Amino acid sequence: MTEKACTLTEARERILKKVKRLPCETVDILKACGRVICEDIVLARDLPPSEISLRDGYSLSSKDLTAGGSSEGFELVGSVTAGDAPCFDIEPGTAAKIATGALLPGRADSVVPYENVKIRNHRIYPTEDVYKGQFVLKPGSIAKKGDIVVRKNSILTPMAVCSIVDCGRAFVRVVRKPRVGVVVTGNEVVEPDHRGSVQQVYSSNRYFLETLTRSYGGDTISMGICRDDENEIASVLKASHGCDCVVISGGTGKGEHDHIRAAWKAAGIKTVFDGVLMHPAKGTGCGWKDGTLYFSLSGNPLASGIAFVEFVSVVLLNFSGVDISVPPTLEARLTDEILVKKSGVPGFFWGKATLINSEIFVTPILPSGENLLGRLSEANCIITIENGRAVESDDWVSIQPICLGNNIGYLSFLS
Amino acid sequence: MTEKACTLTEARERILKKVKRLPCETVDILKACGRVICEDIVLARDLPPSEISLRDGYSLSSKDLTAGGSSEGFELVGSVTAGDAPCFDIEPGTAAKIATGALLPGRADSVVPYENVKIRNHRIYPTEDVYKGQFVLKPGSIAKKGDIVVRKNSILTPMAVCSIVDCGRAFVRVVRKPRVGVVVTGNEVVEPDHRGSVQQVYSSNRYFLETLTRSYGGDTISMGICRDDENEIASVLKASHGCDCVVISGGTGKGEHDHIRAAWKAAGIKTVFDGVLMHPAKGTGCGWKDGTLYFSLSGNPLASGIAFVEFVSVVLLNFSGVDISVPPTLEARLTDEILVKKSGVPGFFWGKATLINSEIFVTPILPSGENLLGRLSEANCIITIENGRAVESDDWVSIQPICLGNNIGYLSFLS
Repeated sequence: MTEKACTLTEARERILKKVKRLPCETVDILKACGRVICEDIVLARDLPPSEISLRDGYSLSSKDLTAGGSSEGFELVGSVTAGDAPCFDIEPGTAAKIATGALLPGRADSVVPYENVKIRNHRIYPTEDVYKGQFVLKPGSIAKKGDIVVRKNSILTPMAVCSIVDCGRAFVRVVRKPRVGVVVTGNEVVEPDHRGSVQQVYSSNRYFLETLTRSYGGDTISMGICRDDENEIASVLKASHGCDCVVISGGTGKGEHDHIRAAWKAAGIKTVFDGVLMHPAKGTGCGWKDGTLYFSLSGNPLASGIAFVEFVSVVLLNFSGVDISVPPTLEARLTDEILVKKSGVPGFFWGKATLINSEIFVTPILPSGENLLGRLSEANCIITIENGRAVESDDWVSIQPICLGNNIGYLSFLS
Repeated sequence: MTEKACTLTEARERILKKVKRLPCETVDILKACGRVICEDIVLARDLPPSEISLRDGYSLSSKDLTAGGSSEGFELVGSVTAGDAPCFDIEPGTAAKIATGALLPGRADSVVPYENVKIRNHRIYPTEDVYKGQFVLKPGSIAKKGDIVVRKNSILTPMAVCSIVDCGRAFVRVVRKPRVGVVVTGNEVVEPDHRGSVQQVYSSNRYFLETLTRSYGGDTISMGICRDDENEIASVLKASHGCDCVVISGGTGKGEHDHIRAAWKAAGIKTVFDGVLMHPAKGTGCGWKDGTLYFSLSGNPLASGIAFVEFVSVVLLNFSGVDISVPPTLEARLTDEILVKKSGVPGFFWGKATLINSEIFVTPILPSGENLLGRLSEANCIITIENGRAVESDDWVSIQPICLGNNIGYLSFLS
């Protein structure tokens, strides 16, 4: 990590060259929603496999109809309900009672609903015209044998889960979740269950980065709090076998208490980039060793969260099988101006987006002002501002919504 | 359940009168993201609690400066790193080495970064003007003692999790998740691990409704597959103690094999509504007993999914502490026309939404055509069409995005 800072685009390109989708695993279909499937799901038989009644009524053969229905009526010869395998044929001049979802008996091709017949002496008389095939679901009309019902590489929706079960499958192959090690560094950092002295700070960045990791589909491995000690950090990094990605917070500066660069070197991690032309999070670093990506993020959540979304989230999504190079963006109306320093680098600001009458508004959360912590707590997106562009209230800006750890969470944005 | 069908608005109003937010529970902060918090989180001490250095450099007192810095320089008398409790004062004419994040020693009020000093004979000489308070984070400048850092009733974002840990909390009170029983009915229904005969169908609706329940923040309780038998269904319903909500699929018709109404009566469930003026899912029913809401949905996922989103999702969100009466909507451009029957009731269609250059496009998934199952698998939203409105390609329509069970899932919509 001794290179010059690179551009955001260059940083992402270098990362994406290192990331391959992870191998597949078999999961219970109830755990597959939202994950990327590794196989085509092909229907093994027509759906429905045979002719099925769409109504409660009577099944008969249209061949036995005279114009407008048979004046002699049809003799009732049996009954079929859903789940039955009817083992009889409809003889000419007869009909069988049938339930919605039931298979048609042999020779029957049409269904007359209850409300469209009169019954007399165990015979039925249709009261309206009957056309061939009415109220019958044809074999293969929902999908045909050999149809690809869910395509390999797609993200499974609830409806895709439903379709997979319709194919008789209770388990499915999906891309494995990435395993992400989270390391926090700093002599001043303590766990929140500890009563912190005035010189200590709680490891909020650890919980923040673990929460973000889970929200973007990763599993987390807590790798503790390291002292500001090169050997201690290097030892923990060497122990990160099995992680697809390791995120380290703090110690990214170039002072004598910043040991990340030395520890990476000691652990044999090669630099992918060291510093990015962006604000904040310009000190973000990325390294690589034996198939594991390492990210060095600021100890300040305001910057580490932005670096997480801009780089780590993209990595986790690609590991998970989602081909994406930039976090998805939406357009929103700014409620307040943002004074952008003419720094010539892309600027990122936390924002609170709200959906009002199907339009998205976003309020920037600026570092100056009262109760920054309280205002930041409401952040649900990142506002991205192009190099040196000035933005005023009412301007349209691009926002990147933040994934939340629980799905009702999407409402913090959309409600 | 013998009433006339009511309007969608009336149905929602009746339901919402029955739903109260669930009680609170204490959870690990790592499991709290996306849930609704039941308490204000108040900062117990200023953040930072004392003056902290923002740079690696030297701490000194501005009182000891002559204009433009002291020409005699400052004697170096000690060193403070992050996590130390400095137990000395800066005597006049002296300075102490300091690290980013470290507490300022007594009497010090400013920090001069390394790059802005020259060092000679154990003395430092600032090379640039020093102003009082520079590179020092003031007590309470991030938030003050007594500030509400996270407000009761808000949905916890990753940043809110971070702020709660900054307050020293590792556990937090959130609204309990709703427990949802899922019952599937039908003699023809079998589990997908069973090799279904031609007259059988797999219980895809069960997996669909359980996946949707989890996606909208509920826990599921699988209550099995009931035969089309009034007593069997009534027994299962009576056994649904502890569920906040029970969803029953199939048997909603009025035929002799549809036992839901009779079973509800036998189980002592009172009707909230029976039928809704909408298409599809007009047969949707809702009942109420001892604090539990019961929903009777179509056995056809195409209709049951729409009823789930329009009614059950709203109930689950309100149980979870989100005050919402209608699923959130966004505006999208239609890629194909929808031929709407002039039925005079609101129409709902499954759709596949895609984000292209920050604009949302939606393709309707219409029941006619090849491989309906395959096309439905890609559904990630519901298109809502007002009563009898005709919609053409390129028109703007309202869509309701579907929550997915895993958070990367939101990308099936946004990517």
